[in-house]
Amino acid sequence: MVGGGFGGLWAVRALRSAPVDLTLIDRSNHHLFQPLLYQVATAGLAAPSIAAPLRHILRRQSNVTVLMRNVETIDLAAHRLQVGDETLEYDFLVVATGATHAYFGHDEWISHAAGLKTLDDALTIRARILTAFERAEAEVDPRRRDAWLTFAIIGAGPTGVELAGTLAEIARHTLAREFRRSDPRLARVLLIEAGSRVLSNFAPDLSAKAAVQLSRLGVTVRTGRAVTAVGSDFVELGDERIATQTILWAAGVAASPLGRRLAAPLDKSGRVIVQPDLSLPARPEVFVVGDLAAIACEGRPVPGIATAAKQMGTFAAKCILADIAARPRNAFRYRDYGALATIGRRAAVVDMPGLKLSGTLAWCFWLAAHIYFLIGFRNRLAVLLDWAWAYFTYDRSARIIVRS
Amino acid sequence: MVGGGFGGLWAVRALRSAPVDLTLIDRSNHHLFQPLLYQVATAGLAAPSIAAPLRHILRRQSNVTVLMRNVETIDLAAHRLQVGDETLEYDFLVVATGATHAYFGHDEWISHAAGLKTLDDALTIRARILTAFERAEAEVDPRRRDAWLTFAIIGAGPTGVELAGTLAEIARHTLAREFRRSDPRLARVLLIEAGSRVLSNFAPDLSAKAAVQLSRLGVTVRTGRAVTAVGSDFVELGDERIATQTILWAAGVAASPLGRRLAAPLDKSGRVIVQPDLSLPARPEVFVVGDLAAIACEGRPVPGIATAAKQMGTFAAKCILADIAARPRNAFRYRDYGALATIGRRAAVVDMPGLKLSGTLAWCFWLAAHIYFLIGFRNRLAVLLDWAWAYFTYDRSARIIVRS
Repeated sequence: MVGGGFGGLWAVRALRSAPVDLTLIDRSNHHLFQPLLYQVATAGLAAPSIAAPLRHILRRQSNVTVLMRNVETIDLAAHRLQVGDETLEYDFLVVATGATHAYFGHDEWISHAAGLKTLDDALTIRARILTAFERAEAEVDPRRRDAWLTFAIIGAGPTGVELAGTLAEIARHTLAREFRRSDPRLARVLLIEAGSRVLSNFAPDLSAKAAVQLSRLGVTVRTGRAVTAVGSDFVELGDERIATQTILWAAGVAASPLGRRLAAPLDKSGRVIVQPDLSLPARPEVFVVGDLAAIACEGRPVPGIATAAKQMGTFAAKCILADIAARPRNAFRYRDYGALATIGRRAAVVDMPGLKLSGTLAWCFWLAAHIYFLIGFRNRLAVLLDWAWAYFTYDRSARIIVRS
Repeated sequence: MVGGGFGGLWAVRALRSAPVDLTLIDRSNHHLFQPLLYQVATAGLAAPSIAAPLRHILRRQSNVTVLMRNVETIDLAAHRLQVGDETLEYDFLVVATGATHAYFGHDEWISHAAGLKTLDDALTIRARILTAFERAEAEVDPRRRDAWLTFAIIGAGPTGVELAGTLAEIARHTLAREFRRSDPRLARVLLIEAGSRVLSNFAPDLSAKAAVQLSRLGVTVRTGRAVTAVGSDFVELGDERIATQTILWAAGVAASPLGRRLAAPLDKSGRVIVQPDLSLPARPEVFVVGDLAAIACEGRPVPGIATAAKQMGTFAAKCILADIAARPRNAFRYRDYGALATIGRRAAVVDMPGLKLSGTLAWCFWLAAHIYFLIGFRNRLAVLLDWAWAYFTYDRSARIIVRS
């Protein structure tokens, strides 16, 4: 298995009793609970609270070896991977290396507009946000101070909405009384979306409610505006230039580059178009699961969310078990449990088949679901503690700039 | 005040009711509880658990402004500091920028041998330690694997002893069953000290007990051996070369470079030799406190530990108050509360006037003292939780490699 996210990890676990030798390869040492990454980025949780070492999670599964390595090359014909100095042969290969953000052909924007996919990204963003308020405090020029207190978030999917709502809460509450020369409550948080509504994957009425909740929290929502230029201290929306020192990117999808080495057709985001059983065309021993795979079920594309990756990983494992037992494989069927997104304090939306919620009730649901799905009892306890603390004090537990 | 460590922060707090305007300048945004830094470095605590934002600590003190800046220049004659674009004038100046490790004239060793002074250092060391075990697992060559499983710690003061003891526990217990191809229990942890005993600032019998406790934990102690060369994958002790991929430096003292800009005599470590009232010779309005100051009380040099820095900071504040009230200043008197050092699980030493402990009792004392002195109720709760977890499960809460 290449990739220790939801897809790869669930595939490994589903094979725990199988008479197979598994090797899980990931270039980081940990499994990351990505839905809460924005909380690390906004100083609400410490990085280790949402991650667990892969070999610790799998310590009791004796048929798996975990290697922290990069996959250099894949030789599909010979069924081999080159991993560092080592060549690994496989009977089955599951590729689950995920996707990241896309900059719509403007890779030069990457250095100005931080994306949020890994813990390293989250700590970088956290440092940028906290530094912005510090620089505003130390700044004597009022226009430059305003630029430090202006935050632009590009892309109003769940990640962008969560970042925006939390940033607004930080500015209006957490930091409100801690500065002497500047006023964080004057910070502008702009959420910029090229499409016509926020949370475009949710039902329209929930999108509308989310937009209202965002405004109530102090976020300025700009839909129907595409970003045309990004610099170190500005964004441009057509002929409008906004001075901002902190630009966060939460838009677009770009699949992992490993997808291009699988000699298979790709969609426009670089995702691998897989067969109904999630395998490569003409290579039934190679599966692609998670955000890296492009597949439609019942006419609708399977979304790039955690639930889907888990289901795909488990399904690929079942195909392998079927092959071992000389049984036929099934076709993948996606069970849609809907989606959740939080906006801020007592504000969230839940869009599930048969259940649509918004506001405080949705927020409680969101909290409970995320605690439940976190891996590791200790992590759950730590997150519960931090969230209870933040709720009652408005304080955030991880307001530390580590990088110099 | 320049510097938000124990010295600077205690000086600021001691002036909270004074009719003065205070500016606290620090290049990081947080106050760091340095005694527990080694725990972050060994993946036992998350970085935010031992730090708190300076402006959050001081939020209720209305006469202080906190600036996250570097001090560029000090004009002692004109009573001015250059801080970024801004010039700050002062009536009194307290310099408390501390000290770091010294490499005995071999600054080329810095890139190979990581020091431990800031949170950034701690995360770097954590990544190196965890990566070493991962690389050992992925390594096919047995000799290179041994080098990955060999850890060299230079300097057997409290920091070195704490790192060594904890590393041994990680190798023998925490990671013991989580690897398939390598065996972390075969890791060698070497504690190398040029002097004749570990913890040389402690009473000799406690040094001896600490050495025994270290050996029992699996640390190889090499006293009376000075390091003569350091490379990326070895250390040399005279004619003995040890292959190791992870070298941690916990030796020597080098004062903050700001000390050199105070036009005052320095000792051999670069510390500023101050007057009995902690001020500069001929400049009574400038104080130097904490690890940056060199002063002797009752014939003995005041050690560079947290307690001393707090006392000096408070004392400088009292001198300022005395000046304001036109009262004479006193001379600084250091109250020696002794020192504590922990070695590992149920192993520590306490060397206080009238109280010498070692073993489990000392360890309980050490735990209680460190929880008590941490700043912030939430931090105390989080550290208590992590320590309780680690005690009962041997697991460590922050085994995450964030850097790529």
